Amino acid sequence: MPTTGCGPVVALRFADGALWALDQTLLPWREVELELRCAGDVAAAIGRLSIRGAPLIGVAAAYGVALELGRDPGGLERACETLAGVRPTAVNLAHALQRVQTAVRDAPPGAAAARALAEAGAIEAEERSASDSLAGHGADLLAGSRRILTHCNTGALAAPGRGTALAVIAELADRGGLELVTAAESRPLLQGARLTVYELRRLGIAHELIVDGAAAGLIASGGFDAVLVGCDRVAANGDVANKVGTYAHALAAAAAGIPFVVAGPTSTIDPACLSGAGIEIEQRDEAEVSAVLTGPDGLARELTLAGTRCRNPAFDITPASLVTALVTERGVARPAGGESVLALLGPRPA
Amino acid sequence: MPTTGCGPVVALRFADGALWALDQTLLPWREVELELRCAGDVAAAIGRLSIRGAPLIGVAAAYGVALELGRDPGGLERACETLAGVRPTAVNLAHALQRVQTAVRDAPPGAAAARALAEAGAIEAEERSASDSLAGHGADLLAGSRRILTHCNTGALAAPGRGTALAVIAELADRGGLELVTAAESRPLLQGARLTVYELRRLGIAHELIVDGAAAGLIASGGFDAVLVGCDRVAANGDVANKVGTYAHALAAAAAGIPFVVAGPTSTIDPACLSGAGIEIEQRDEAEVSAVLTGPDGLARELTLAGTRCRNPAFDITPASLVTALVTERGVARPAGGESVLALLGPRPA
Repeated sequence: MPTTGCGPVVALRFADGALWALDQTLLPWREVELELRCAGDVAAAIGRLSIRGAPLIGVAAAYGVALELGRDPGGLERACETLAGVRPTAVNLAHALQRVQTAVRDAPPGAAAARALAEAGAIEAEERSASDSLAGHGADLLAGSRRILTHCNTGALAAPGRGTALAVIAELADRGGLELVTAAESRPLLQGARLTVYELRRLGIAHELIVDGAAAGLIASGGFDAVLVGCDRVAANGDVANKVGTYAHALAAAAAGIPFVVAGPTSTIDPACLSGAGIEIEQRDEAEVSAVLTGPDGLARELTLAGTRCRNPAFDITPASLVTALVTERGVARPAGGESVLALLGPRPA
Repeated sequence: MPTTGCGPVVALRFADGALWALDQTLLPWREVELELRCAGDVAAAIGRLSIRGAPLIGVAAAYGVALELGRDPGGLERACETLAGVRPTAVNLAHALQRVQTAVRDAPPGAAAARALAEAGAIEAEERSASDSLAGHGADLLAGSRRILTHCNTGALAAPGRGTALAVIAELADRGGLELVTAAESRPLLQGARLTVYELRRLGIAHELIVDGAAAGLIASGGFDAVLVGCDRVAANGDVANKVGTYAHALAAAAAGIPFVVAGPTSTIDPACLSGAGIEIEQRDEAEVSAVLTGPDGLARELTLAGTRCRNPAFDITPASLVTALVTERGVARPAGGESVLALLGPRPA
């Protein structure tokens, strides 16, 4: 059990020739690090959500390629294949794999692993820096907001550094004036109840938990100054794919006239994807709906009759028209339409 | 475990001087009848949701008064006090208690229990008849709808007869053409996952289960022809209080341009309540959010860190402007504004 105010968590670290990942399926009850030594290990950890969060997935995949090249200098293609398809919605994974491939392409076999590792480290450092920058931009934008609703988990467990939306929340708390963060539990896998509550307690930020269905009514009754979420992919027109349940919060925020703000690094923007209609929504296992899969005892708990058919989209699309602002490390797109979003990508700094 | 197509369930029955209620907290895994012999027994069963659903609560409360008068002919006021405050949002409870009080008022002490019992039986019979009538009106209105999303539980477990929204669904299935009913799980107490799935399986109607947060995205992507829910209280202006999570479905239905239909007997309409702002939203125990309280093993299962503060409104308000139609036993108010809703109450038939 984390102590209140014990500080941020370390979700991933590369040491002793392995990638060590806090197993997020066991949180908040057990803090167990997984030792990952090849691309297959990393892919499996991403697939079962031991590692999750769009930016963190990208970084982990890059390390996964480096690990594989350390075992087999000719294993680049196989490693990328193993990792590329494991989760389809976040674009960071594909971006990170492309970068490592480019870095390694002309390397002599003996140098491939070292180059891949260096590139993975560079991606991680950039994401860490992006987290700090976007936290500042977001806190400037939301200055004066005292009660914020958030969804899923967007902290250090989801992105290197302090995270995305939760980094903004931590920065607002540091600056003073933040009264209460409300976490929606984020069924089916309860990233809000398990992970966001865990991080907020470690950070010493006042918080409460609600079921996802309670958010809209509480927004309507004036319960929040803003809704702030992360994103798994942003299309060229500003449409946002994020954890299932996000779209309903956006509808309620628009109806109540409060800001609906999305935070994420520019690595989450996919200019090749014209709109939300082009984003593949991952359909996950029915058992995530029919049961609660993790708990203090580590056992699954059935919620319905055995044999019940379930549908389990992991994400939904919030149209750009409902997004008040997109906060990135390069600044804020407001309103988050196509032009303002693509402008953030502009020419990348050298 | 219910057999597919084994028929409707009996939620309440009065026999051998007792009210027998199927304990809905144990469903769908165990079918256990509670034997209730006084107003306190009934109030406790309603309070812990062993008996639930606005119309069923009203009927149970009326029987509770009758039981109490059988033990103490002078116990009318105490019985009504015990029952009146146990759940504040549904108006049916207050309506039913008023009717029994009126029926008993001038009765000689020896006749009070019999008169109360007769009135309880009359209320139950009226609700049963209302269920049949509104099922027909609703099926007429939704003729041609093949895929319907519903929330919480609104079948025979929620109202005498076939229920409310689920009665309409059963009638549509009987008439042919209904392809799939999607039940939102309805956290925190999972009435959708536990009770609606149980009833739909018994009725032999094709169904699937989703988490509440998945509804809005599936609505947006054209997944349903209509959203159909019950109601716990309808204000004079047509605003609807229903299970928490309903409002988000209504927002999504409006955005997608599909009908959002509310079904309930006119006993659920409260003309004394001018708008949704006047409806008291019951705040329930935090443990319902921080844990899953029922399951096959009957044990609570923690979902978050111990000591996490939770907020747990049991209902939310959907404004009349989002309600395509209100279906009652007396016909359909469409659009469900103040005038059309109050017209349904008109002069009651003799």
